[in-house]
Amino acid sequence: MNKLHEHFSRIFNSFEEQTVTAFAQAFNYKEFKKGEYLLKEGEYCNHLTFILKGAMMCYYLKDGKQYIDEFSLDHEFITDYTSFLTHSPSNKNIQCLEDCKVYVLSNESLNQLYQTNSANFERLGRVMAEQLYLQWHEKSKSLLMDNATERYLKLIQNRAELPQRVPQYLIAEYLGITPESLSRIRKTSV
Amino acid sequence: MNKLHEHFSRIFNSFEEQTVTAFAQAFNYKEFKKGEYLLKEGEYCNHLTFILKGAMMCYYLKDGKQYIDEFSLDHEFITDYTSFLTHSPSNKNIQCLEDCKVYVLSNESLNQLYQTNSANFERLGRVMAEQLYLQWHEKSKSLLMDNATERYLKLIQNRAELPQRVPQYLIAEYLGITPESLSRIRKTSV
Repeated sequence: MNKLHEHFSRIFNSFEEQTVTAFAQAFNYKEFKKGEYLLKEGEYCNHLTFILKGAMMCYYLKDGKQYIDEFSLDHEFITDYTSFLTHSPSNKNIQCLEDCKVYVLSNESLNQLYQTNSANFERLGRVMAEQLYLQWHEKSKSLLMDNATERYLKLIQNRAELPQRVPQYLIAEYLGITPESLSRIRKTSV
Repeated sequence: MNKLHEHFSRIFNSFEEQTVTAFAQAFNYKEFKKGEYLLKEGEYCNHLTFILKGAMMCYYLKDGKQYIDEFSLDHEFITDYTSFLTHSPSNKNIQCLEDCKVYVLSNESLNQLYQTNSANFERLGRVMAEQLYLQWHEKSKSLLMDNATERYLKLIQNRAELPQRVPQYLIAEYLGITPESLSRIRKTSV
């Protein structure tokens, strides 16, 4: 049982052992250097990526401005699932903020799993899509209603080490505020 | 073949006829009067709702302020899928803006479908969750980057009749602008 299998057993704990094993075995190990891109705007996202160790950020570019929509750390998935599902060019950029050790699953391999062991993997695919829906629904709600302090607290929820691993100016950019305002928020929200 | 079946054959066109038929048969017909609530904050959302005819809006209340996050018209699904999936109390309100004719599917019936005809319905559940993910991911991106004009154009995309069916002050509220600003946007974006 490798490390990936260990994490998947925890994440997909309602699934049979053999389903989790086959899922983990379909991933391939890769490494990226700090600053390298996992995905660039205009490319097709053909992989799901699970970060074993490392930090990445996902951002859009619009009219010359950078909009950060996500940071991902150890034991989290990162992908442009929209491009992955619709086979359309991505409008996201995913960049490594640290050297990264990851496991990747190709779209082709996932579809093979759906076909060969249909019900179990369709369920696994459903659960993954449901989890992604929950995450983005929550994010959308937060963008609609929350102020910068509330968005900061939600960002570091369950990821207390995030401010130590991601430069402060990027977190400020994510929140749409100045680094000085972020310092104030961090001081008052400890 | 009833009207619901007809719509589902179009929406789920990659599925076998018998899967679509069984799915449509699990829904029950209901009617709601204008002003009535399909769901109120604090309640559990135990149903998926497909609007055959009518208009609904979905909103949150936070610190006494109303935040509209969605309008739904004929032939669209509406639900609090987060509450539905996680069996937790909803923090949304879903209200009818017109008299509504709808079809509802209970969580219990959907789970029965997953169990009895496993692979086909798991796939259908996966496709539904993927579509919802795509929709909320796009919404989240729009909230992050788009101005009111861009958000208005996306709102009425494929739903040109929306401004005729939803009061202007509610659309302005959705966009976070005054009704006067919305008038200007509508005049310049025709």
